[in-house]
Amino acid sequence: MSWDVTCLTVNHSSPLPLHYQLSQLLCAAIASGDLKPGDCIPPETYIVEHLGISRATVRQAISGLVNRGLLYRKKGKGTFVAAPKIDGGFFAKLESFHQEMLEKGLTPSTRVLQWERIPPDGEINAVLELPPDAPLLLLRRLRFANGMPVVQVDTYLSAQLFGGLLEQDMEKNSLYQLLESMYHRPVIRARRSIEAVNAHPDEAKYLETEPGSALFLVKTVAYSSGSLPVEYSIARYRGDNNKFTIELTR
Amino acid sequence: MSWDVTCLTVNHSSPLPLHYQLSQLLCAAIASGDLKPGDCIPPETYIVEHLGISRATVRQAISGLVNRGLLYRKKGKGTFVAAPKIDGGFFAKLESFHQEMLEKGLTPSTRVLQWERIPPDGEINAVLELPPDAPLLLLRRLRFANGMPVVQVDTYLSAQLFGGLLEQDMEKNSLYQLLESMYHRPVIRARRSIEAVNAHPDEAKYLETEPGSALFLVKTVAYSSGSLPVEYSIARYRGDNNKFTIELTR
Repeated sequence: MSWDVTCLTVNHSSPLPLHYQLSQLLCAAIASGDLKPGDCIPPETYIVEHLGISRATVRQAISGLVNRGLLYRKKGKGTFVAAPKIDGGFFAKLESFHQEMLEKGLTPSTRVLQWERIPPDGEINAVLELPPDAPLLLLRRLRFANGMPVVQVDTYLSAQLFGGLLEQDMEKNSLYQLLESMYHRPVIRARRSIEAVNAHPDEAKYLETEPGSALFLVKTVAYSSGSLPVEYSIARYRGDNNKFTIELTR
Repeated sequence: MSWDVTCLTVNHSSPLPLHYQLSQLLCAAIASGDLKPGDCIPPETYIVEHLGISRATVRQAISGLVNRGLLYRKKGKGTFVAAPKIDGGFFAKLESFHQEMLEKGLTPSTRVLQWERIPPDGEINAVLELPPDAPLLLLRRLRFANGMPVVQVDTYLSAQLFGGLLEQDMEKNSLYQLLESMYHRPVIRARRSIEAVNAHPDEAKYLETEPGSALFLVKTVAYSSGSLPVEYSIARYRGDNNKFTIELTR
C-alpha cells in the first residue's frame, strides 16, 4: 500500500466538512493510483490518530465511499479499494458478449465447459416451445474479459433444429453468427430478465469469486423472425466486476 | 408442509428421465399450492427412499429447480420453495414505484426514514452538477408492496432549488409529481445503472432480509427538460423478491 496517511492533512478551519475532505483525499489517491484496486485502507483508528479527526467522521467518509462502490468491506479483514466494474449495455442492446467487450477495449475469451446433446427438460422445452420429448443441446461457457472471468452462460437450443452446431468450435465461433449463417435464423428480438442471487459454491469456483457473493442471474429467450424462440440462456455475471447502464425516457 | 412424497410415484419404464419426472412432481406441487413459498422440501434421503430413485437423480432434479429460482437452498437448513418475485419494468420504463405497484395489483406503501437538509457531498454534488459547497436534501424511504419491504431508496436533491419540498409529507406524496406541480420540473429522462451487491447488516435489517443476501443496487440520475439533473437516487432492492424484465430488439 503506497497511500501514506501520515503525509496528509485536513483543514479544520475550512467550511468544507471534515468527512468530505477525507473522502476527497481518498478519491484523489484512487484516481492517482496511490491506492489501487484490492489495496487495504488503513484502520479507522490509524486515520483518526494521524488526521486528528473523530472516529465518526472517518466512518462517515468511508461509509460514503463504500456506498458509492469505490471501497468495499470484507468481514473481519478491513476495507479495500474496489476495481472499476465493466459497464455493460446488456439491458440496452442485443449484442454478443464478444462484440461488446471489444467495443469497451477489453480482450474477450471463452472456455467451453460443456457442449452436448441432453435429454428434454420440462421448463426449458416449454420456453423454447418444443414438444416435451424433444432433445436439447446444452452449451455451457465461461467468458472472460482480459483473462478475468465475467460470466458463466448455459445456452439451450433444440437438438432437432440445430444439431449440426455440435461440430462447431464454440470457443472460436459466435452462436448468433452461426444461427444466421448456417440456419438463416438471425436473432432479432429477446426477452431478458435479471435477478440478484448469491453464488452457489460451484458457481463461485468457476467465476473465481467467493461463495455467497452477489451475482446477476440473467435469463434470455431469443427469437428469430416471426416469434420462433431459438435459444434460452441462463447467465451468471459476477456482481463485483459488472454493472449495467440504461437510458430511459418518458 | 402438505406435500406428501409417500403418496407419489415415478414410472421407471417411462422414456422420460427420472429427474425430469421428479421435477415435474415438484413443479406440480408448487403450482397446485401443496408446496407454498417458504415450505421446506423433504431431505434427499427421504425422497430417495420413498421414490426408489438414486441420490444423483434427486440432486439433479432439485439443482435444476434451484437453478430456475423455483427452489432455494439455505446453508445448513435445507431447500425451500421460493416466493414469486415482483417482476418490475424498472429497466424498461420511467415510472414511479407507486404507479408500478398499483399496475401489478400490489398495494404500495412508504415509510420515510430521513427527510432533511444535509451538508454537500463531493460525488453527489458533482452528479447533480451543483457547486461543491451547495447543500443537499436527503430523502431516505423504505417502500413496501403488500406490507413487504421491497426497496430502500436514498434520494438527493439540491436544497437551494427544492428546499420547499421539506414541508411535504413524502409518505403520501410522489416526488416526481411534486417536482412537476411545485417546480415545473417534470422528470423526462433518466440514466440508471444496476449492480449486484451483498447486503450490509444495516441494509438487511431495514429490508428484513439476511445480511449478505444479494441486493440490486440501482443508481438513477433523473433529468428535467434540457439536461438539468434534478435528482440522484441510490436504491437497494431485495434480490429475493424482485426481478426486472426487458424486451430488446436489434
